[in-house]
Amino acid sequence: MSEYIEHDIDGVSVGVVEKKFFNFAEPPNQMVLENGKKLGPITIAYETYGRLDPEKRNAVLVFHALSGDSHAAGYYDPDDPKPGWWDIMVGPGKGIDTDKYFVVCSNILGSCMGSTGPCSINPETGMPYGLHFPVVTIGDMVEAQKELMDHLGIEKILSVVGGSIGGMQVLEWCARYPDRVRSAIPLATTTRHSALAIAFNEVGRQSIMADPNWNNGDYYAGEKPNLGLAVARMIGHITYLSDESMRLKFGRRLQDKSDFSFNFDADFQIESYLRYQGKKFVDRFDANSFLYITKAADYFDLRKQYGNGSSVEAFSKTKAKYLVVSYTSDWLYPTYQSRSMVKAMKKNGMDVSFCEIEAEWGHDAFLLPNRTLNSMMKGFLERVYNETE
Amino acid sequence: MSEYIEHDIDGVSVGVVEKKFFNFAEPPNQMVLENGKKLGPITIAYETYGRLDPEKRNAVLVFHALSGDSHAAGYYDPDDPKPGWWDIMVGPGKGIDTDKYFVVCSNILGSCMGSTGPCSINPETGMPYGLHFPVVTIGDMVEAQKELMDHLGIEKILSVVGGSIGGMQVLEWCARYPDRVRSAIPLATTTRHSALAIAFNEVGRQSIMADPNWNNGDYYAGEKPNLGLAVARMIGHITYLSDESMRLKFGRRLQDKSDFSFNFDADFQIESYLRYQGKKFVDRFDANSFLYITKAADYFDLRKQYGNGSSVEAFSKTKAKYLVVSYTSDWLYPTYQSRSMVKAMKKNGMDVSFCEIEAEWGHDAFLLPNRTLNSMMKGFLERVYNETE
Repeated sequence: MSEYIEHDIDGVSVGVVEKKFFNFAEPPNQMVLENGKKLGPITIAYETYGRLDPEKRNAVLVFHALSGDSHAAGYYDPDDPKPGWWDIMVGPGKGIDTDKYFVVCSNILGSCMGSTGPCSINPETGMPYGLHFPVVTIGDMVEAQKELMDHLGIEKILSVVGGSIGGMQVLEWCARYPDRVRSAIPLATTTRHSALAIAFNEVGRQSIMADPNWNNGDYYAGEKPNLGLAVARMIGHITYLSDESMRLKFGRRLQDKSDFSFNFDADFQIESYLRYQGKKFVDRFDANSFLYITKAADYFDLRKQYGNGSSVEAFSKTKAKYLVVSYTSDWLYPTYQSRSMVKAMKKNGMDVSFCEIEAEWGHDAFLLPNRTLNSMMKGFLERVYNETE
Repeated sequence: MSEYIEHDIDGVSVGVVEKKFFNFAEPPNQMVLENGKKLGPITIAYETYGRLDPEKRNAVLVFHALSGDSHAAGYYDPDDPKPGWWDIMVGPGKGIDTDKYFVVCSNILGSCMGSTGPCSINPETGMPYGLHFPVVTIGDMVEAQKELMDHLGIEKILSVVGGSIGGMQVLEWCARYPDRVRSAIPLATTTRHSALAIAFNEVGRQSIMADPNWNNGDYYAGEKPNLGLAVARMIGHITYLSDESMRLKFGRRLQDKSDFSFNFDADFQIESYLRYQGKKFVDRFDANSFLYITKAADYFDLRKQYGNGSSVEAFSKTKAKYLVVSYTSDWLYPTYQSRSMVKAMKKNGMDVSFCEIEAEWGHDAFLLPNRTLNSMMKGFLERVYNETE
């Protein structure tokens, strides 16, 4: 991908950072989930970058997508080969400027990167939860983040920022805690999944559940459903790209050969790429977390939850200033879905900026360096900060 | 789907038809495949509708797509609940009028519907071929069809017609046997797969090969890789539809429930639909055939094979009159790919008509009743028949 994207906006890193843990919901004070079930104790892994100002007016919450974690920026160790997943955006002088803002990124509830999820130990059994873990929602994830904010003593958040499933958390925050969010930047996201998005998630889930090693979610003591999870990840990667980006990046180029193999090896570069992405993923991600997080994304429906089916009504109770961003080649959450959200905000007379960024990289574009996005976010955050009493 | 499509163009059926078998390539006269390997004996299952006229000027070859068979029209038994897969198009007075034309449809080489494929008995071992079956190409499929034409005594074919992978066979016929094809109707197809199309096929193959029952292709005596094949089919079905068609057909409607189940059952109708399509498919299709046919489609590259990478050169040797059809919502073989093929034909000064049909049904649209397509094909066939000396 390197030859097509802009690299010179990386700037300086926040440097060495540390993963922290926040524990709450100790029984009997468990958290009551949207589905009525109780969960606790809960651990939330999180990181912070920059300093909270004395008035606590400069907190920016960053949310990760499906497979991300709390490590948005910097390095755990100076020798780490790669920084956090959004290092291009979060750092000194960057789009989310850590010289000015106190940035918090936490791992979502249900994940497997330090926060409580299906691979965590169920205190009732002393064994990993597996499918005994309750089905959590985007609302539950936000509720856990709210507990973290209370713990950090942050009442009002300057901005909530995230792409994809992270963008759903942005929208959920605005609707659930309108008085605590001053501004919001939902990127490459939607108020609810289309049938197409649900379809891709469902096929990924079916692939995992078809793997005999999945064993109804109870695999932590034995072989993991790596083959099923790898296929699920491959499907995901197709949806993160686009027809155009795949054509530019791979076309019909062959992988390390001059002609077809006439067997079922990977002939084409796109095949190698997908197999590699699938294999790499199983080393770092838990198959059950994939099931739970995709289900939460499919269930997410801002209109149903907050507006009786109307997005105008759903946004009517929110108070944030919005910067909505979509990408021309994103066919998972196409621009028309962002436009519809912007329309609903405007009908409510809200302060909303919208930008559709020209990018061939599909849904994944929000993770790639883009000068337009960086300067737009920088400008937006500066404005809302300056407008804050 | 019933409420959105046109049903009143079905007309009369060709009635009761019979599947026939043509055997050839008996050793030592085996067929030499494109990869240099030999295959034989070969059986091709086929059906015919209508009558071959005495001058043998009225033969129309219809090609099926990935999962189809020779049963394009009519019923094997008057009590059959459903007719052949293109009964809406092939029959008395229909788009391909069996009162006028002699229609032949054969099952492709490598399939599992009566023609020789990986589930056939390998004469050398007395066991099913499995992965010992050679990797065949679209060219090899056409070569077998050519043998069938010779067997039926048909030298010149009035028209070759097919959609998707069937359309690749159309293009291959025109390039491989330019003197035997008077006209061609490639529908919803491409001169070569994009990286996106290869990606979807590869994920389907990986899903099959991840199923332990696949057992390196050797499963005919035991449990079949049904779970892997079902997931592959589910992926396929997503690509056959479109964002819009899924929204119209399913949206976010729930399946037989009033609220979310908060477990991993099928909550949404789209989930039920995909699971059903997956399950239904494994009863009738062989997983190895899925591997072989998708590989043949990925390998197909008319430009490389016949034009040194140039589609203008590839079409320069063809002599057919063309009717090229694409569909607005087909994102597997988008219209831009058909346009590029039409451009290459026109640069060669060919007799070509092109129509992009407005349809929300995605790639699958070519299998659905559509008055525009029927009348266009009828008119085109009449013209080329009348222009035939």
